[in-house]
Amino acid sequence: MIVDVSKKILIVGLGLLGGSYARVLKRFGFHISAITKEQSSIEYALNEGIIDEGSTDLDEKIIGGADLVIFALYPHVFVEWIKDNQKLLKSGALITDVTGVKRSIVYKIQDMLRTDVEFIPAHPMAGREVSGVENSSDKLFSGANYIVTPTEKNTPEAITTCLELGRLLGFSNVTTLSPQEHDEMIGFLSQLTHCIAITLMTCNDKENMEKFTGDSFRDLTRIARINDLMWSELFVANKDALLNQMDMFMDKFKELRAMLESEDIDAMRKMMRHSTERRALFDKK
Amino acid sequence: MIVDVSKKILIVGLGLLGGSYARVLKRFGFHISAITKEQSSIEYALNEGIIDEGSTDLDEKIIGGADLVIFALYPHVFVEWIKDNQKLLKSGALITDVTGVKRSIVYKIQDMLRTDVEFIPAHPMAGREVSGVENSSDKLFSGANYIVTPTEKNTPEAITTCLELGRLLGFSNVTTLSPQEHDEMIGFLSQLTHCIAITLMTCNDKENMEKFTGDSFRDLTRIARINDLMWSELFVANKDALLNQMDMFMDKFKELRAMLESEDIDAMRKMMRHSTERRALFDKK
Repeated sequence: MIVDVSKKILIVGLGLLGGSYARVLKRFGFHISAITKEQSSIEYALNEGIIDEGSTDLDEKIIGGADLVIFALYPHVFVEWIKDNQKLLKSGALITDVTGVKRSIVYKIQDMLRTDVEFIPAHPMAGREVSGVENSSDKLFSGANYIVTPTEKNTPEAITTCLELGRLLGFSNVTTLSPQEHDEMIGFLSQLTHCIAITLMTCNDKENMEKFTGDSFRDLTRIARINDLMWSELFVANKDALLNQMDMFMDKFKELRAMLESEDIDAMRKMMRHSTERRALFDKK
Repeated sequence: MIVDVSKKILIVGLGLLGGSYARVLKRFGFHISAITKEQSSIEYALNEGIIDEGSTDLDEKIIGGADLVIFALYPHVFVEWIKDNQKLLKSGALITDVTGVKRSIVYKIQDMLRTDVEFIPAHPMAGREVSGVENSSDKLFSGANYIVTPTEKNTPEAITTCLELGRLLGFSNVTTLSPQEHDEMIGFLSQLTHCIAITLMTCNDKENMEKFTGDSFRDLTRIARINDLMWSELFVANKDALLNQMDMFMDKFKELRAMLESEDIDAMRKMMRHSTERRALFDKK
């Protein structure tokens, strides 16, 4: 399936990400439908003109009519949905997702899925500190990464379609990784950083610190404001990779502590120069 | 001494901070002089009109003429300067500084200082990733904290003058702390955050990570680009307080690791809610 505007797209889970998908895709002229929990989300999206139809029920006409179904749900809800409702999908439908962890759901879903439907997993690396379709934006994906994580079960056509979807959505960098590579990378770049931020934010309850806070502390704790339901699930779903990254971080932190304790200025300066050089790689291009 | 514009101000060390002091104070009409290492810094500042005179030598007329002397030097250079050159200071001069650690220099300097000169310590909590007078700015202090850390040896008049200087410079929050309180606070809010950033930046050398880096990793590592000479000295100068903060952080990080390993979702969610609530306190007002 090539993504052309005659295709019908269904978004299951109309929150920040699902709503932002709808906003961008509607502009291209696709027929967009949505299934979500809250009637207020459907009404908001209809009023904004970013969906053509929507329901809080398992509307068989909507689900059965969709050529491309995008699941923007929590990992375990996504798995449950497929188990319970995949019978409603159209034969030949392509399904994809936005889940931030891959190994723990990709194989589970591909293994249980009907053979006349294909699941091509993807992770749009975009988000905000706020949630809900009311905060969705068609600018959310500019500058961000979209990663497709195909397995041996995927067809070249589905991979191509999913990459094309990422480009249509406006992601600046659209690429593929294996589920394993993805989960290691996300364990380091995203999950470990959230672990550090919430630890820093909770390790010292001394009062009045906020009066003296400068930009560096604020930068390191911006993501300490966190959706506890979602992130605890994502951490557990990537447990082995994240534990491994936490251990790598802790080992290096202990090295630095030992340098400080022994006042080994040369070793500290070497580590700082390494840090400075490596950070230059990560500047926004 | 009350800061009025008939007073002559000398800045020793004309870098980013010293230059920014000069920029702001010159605007009020003070006579500003500078002693610094590089002739090019003096020439730049004269051309910009932010100092009236300057020298790379220990110019006795300049030093002996100053009513207020601001030391913007590395901690050990500051201590050496006072030891070697305090004889050149005018009787009755008030001296202050910009040093980011306090206990390790404040008592040393106050103990060795001539009795007809007073040292009132201060820490302007402002900086950038770049250095040098060429990067100085009269906007550097807006939104930032200025902390005076008096001891029993200081006179009320000197404390008042130093607080007034902080307000003149344009700091948004001007306050006092004891040297001990200051060093604990800075160990947590500034030094620990730098330790975390350089650790995160150096703990995983896997290639191509930068291709997938999002805002959260960039935020946590912005300060991983670090002046190794200055920060290694500051770390060692505040060693006990920083080691203590590093241990508090590590203990909490290990707690989180244990929650993840045992998949204790409830405990993780509780920690995340605590983090979210506490972070709200630290929002920019």
